[in-house]
Amino acid sequence: MKATGIVVEYNPFHNGHKLHLNKARELTQADVVIAVMSGSFVQRGEPAILPKWERTRMALAAGVDMVVELPVSFATQHATIFAEEAVRILDAIHVDTLFFGSEHGVAEDFTLAAKKVVDNEARFDEAIQLALVDKKTSYARAYTEAFKKLFGQNLLDITKPNNILGFHYALAAQKQNPSISLQTIPREHAGYHDEEANHDQIASATAIRKLILAGKLEESSHYLPASSIAILRNYEGPFLSWTDYWSFLQYRLIQAGSEELEGIRGVSEGIQNRMQQAATKAQNFSDFIELTKTKRYSNARLQRTALQILLNARSQTSSPYIRILGMNKTGQQYLSLHKKNISLPIITTVSKAPAGLLEEELRATNIYTLAKGLENYQAGDFHIPPILTL
Amino acid sequence: MKATGIVVEYNPFHNGHKLHLNKARELTQADVVIAVMSGSFVQRGEPAILPKWERTRMALAAGVDMVVELPVSFATQHATIFAEEAVRILDAIHVDTLFFGSEHGVAEDFTLAAKKVVDNEARFDEAIQLALVDKKTSYARAYTEAFKKLFGQNLLDITKPNNILGFHYALAAQKQNPSISLQTIPREHAGYHDEEANHDQIASATAIRKLILAGKLEESSHYLPASSIAILRNYEGPFLSWTDYWSFLQYRLIQAGSEELEGIRGVSEGIQNRMQQAATKAQNFSDFIELTKTKRYSNARLQRTALQILLNARSQTSSPYIRILGMNKTGQQYLSLHKKNISLPIITTVSKAPAGLLEEELRATNIYTLAKGLENYQAGDFHIPPILTL
Repeated sequence: MKATGIVVEYNPFHNGHKLHLNKARELTQADVVIAVMSGSFVQRGEPAILPKWERTRMALAAGVDMVVELPVSFATQHATIFAEEAVRILDAIHVDTLFFGSEHGVAEDFTLAAKKVVDNEARFDEAIQLALVDKKTSYARAYTEAFKKLFGQNLLDITKPNNILGFHYALAAQKQNPSISLQTIPREHAGYHDEEANHDQIASATAIRKLILAGKLEESSHYLPASSIAILRNYEGPFLSWTDYWSFLQYRLIQAGSEELEGIRGVSEGIQNRMQQAATKAQNFSDFIELTKTKRYSNARLQRTALQILLNARSQTSSPYIRILGMNKTGQQYLSLHKKNISLPIITTVSKAPAGLLEEELRATNIYTLAKGLENYQAGDFHIPPILTL
Repeated sequence: MKATGIVVEYNPFHNGHKLHLNKARELTQADVVIAVMSGSFVQRGEPAILPKWERTRMALAAGVDMVVELPVSFATQHATIFAEEAVRILDAIHVDTLFFGSEHGVAEDFTLAAKKVVDNEARFDEAIQLALVDKKTSYARAYTEAFKKLFGQNLLDITKPNNILGFHYALAAQKQNPSISLQTIPREHAGYHDEEANHDQIASATAIRKLILAGKLEESSHYLPASSIAILRNYEGPFLSWTDYWSFLQYRLIQAGSEELEGIRGVSEGIQNRMQQAATKAQNFSDFIELTKTKRYSNARLQRTALQILLNARSQTSSPYIRILGMNKTGQQYLSLHKKNISLPIITTVSKAPAGLLEEELRATNIYTLAKGLENYQAGDFHIPPILTL
């Protein structure tokens, strides 16, 4: 069985995701498409708009064959770690192809760029450090500058969000297993960050979340496949955003001593002091980010750091594993064929997982489900089995 | 000017407090009555039902001449520390008499009991430790048993709540300044713990809070002086209980590692593990206490420990100071007369206080005012000056 891996958040699953999924299957001639999906919290440093189980249902209903959870400790970090660990999971599960959307659209250039970085790692790191000497430069900008300086302007524009991710997938593949084949298609229609819906049937997830959170479910349904709409309509819980967790973050920042926050992922250079000050003044989460921001820290980085504080994420490393959230028959068949050759622990029943392995994930779910209306999902990691469909 | 000190919570100020206050003035022939009052959180390990500023207004309106805050680090601890530090403040401010209500009602017996304990401290401590060897014995019970064993049944029944406090006031006076005169009157009518109102005009603060929290303000007003009723009716904020803070405590217990909770006041013998387990299951605070309790830990001790976790109270000691919450003309006159002879720092403007001295208090107020509807009191320690009345 030919397997294609994709890295997703499905926050929520929309028409653009459906196009991407169809192309992945068609262009790679996959028998099975395996999605590595963020769980309760996503890479922007936000809670997912609805629980991972609902998003798994959406993925399976739309034709994904297997959904594997990207552990929270990887899913909520910057592109490098996010991509490295997503690729590690897909490689362990033996996908032949890694498929992604990008603004650039030419897979060979991603491989070429990744090779160049790997071959010039020391020089590249040095160039990043040099750019970082300017205290006002963010890491993301330093990375881009170093890349341009070493490899020129024209190879690949890594200021574009999907190119960044694609480049990091390529880099991870290059380091972990260069025999994984890369395929990409140009992303069309909605830009990653677009706040407004601007096409008949395609809108960015950001725009769709905005509609849903504003209670405009009908309006958002133009951009969603029927399968997602049905799941959204049946869903009885709340749609979630930082609004539901802000008071916990605020409380924690007010309660903690500054030194207690050291050692949390992303906390450095005294950013916790700015955050603690801001917490006593801010009325809501966006106020808080506004009060906290500096040239050195992008909004995404601040959100991610705030999230790590909310989750009390202290360990710098976490062990990877394969936690199956759902499968159809094809996915199950694929897993049966390969499970003896998979080098990472496979988790289908959380209570049977090696002690401690899912500790961070379980805590994240416990915190996620503190939001009002999510009572049905409390301790869900233990009581909700992988979702199996035909 | 002859000064009498009283130790109060006024949670809220009711007719029983009014009787007590009148008796204090009458029997001690005081020119000035000074109340040391708990602030945002009280000795039962609970948030005060309404902010300290409103409770200060009630006290002044009912005739107290000066209200001094008992710092949160003392106000929320067991009777020994609560009493020691309240007496330390009253002694520093040079009261002649310490006046308290008690079931026993005879001041000489309190002094006698205190003297006996001071004179036999080593033997007494040993007897307590001996009783504690039984892992099912609470500290409170061990204390009572040791007391009975050494001094007999008849001297003073320190199983009664007001006798316990009175005894600890006497003990503190005995240690700090035996020249402070003690006076007590027998408490009548409502028992300390009574849940139901059982007299025409007198009910316990517990019963009154129950009525107020149930929205029965009219019914509660039978037990309150007109001055308290007027302040309650003008008060625009919410009436507070653990219900308003439970989600923060739950979040913190779920978020924290077990070892992070070590070193918090009252956390010992792994009680934090029981609490962390209970937090994932309990639906509300009373559920939580029910799930956590053991023979070793009284409900009061569990509530107080939960509160210390909520407040992240890590330092075992805190420095005493005199923080004036309010005064009438008599109180102001008294303070002018004595302020050069007061050995503790006097705080009337928080922003001018020595750095760090009020850190724990400020954090407690910040956490207290996270409750919905308390926005007007946010940063109140800085923006609300001492309440001055005629």
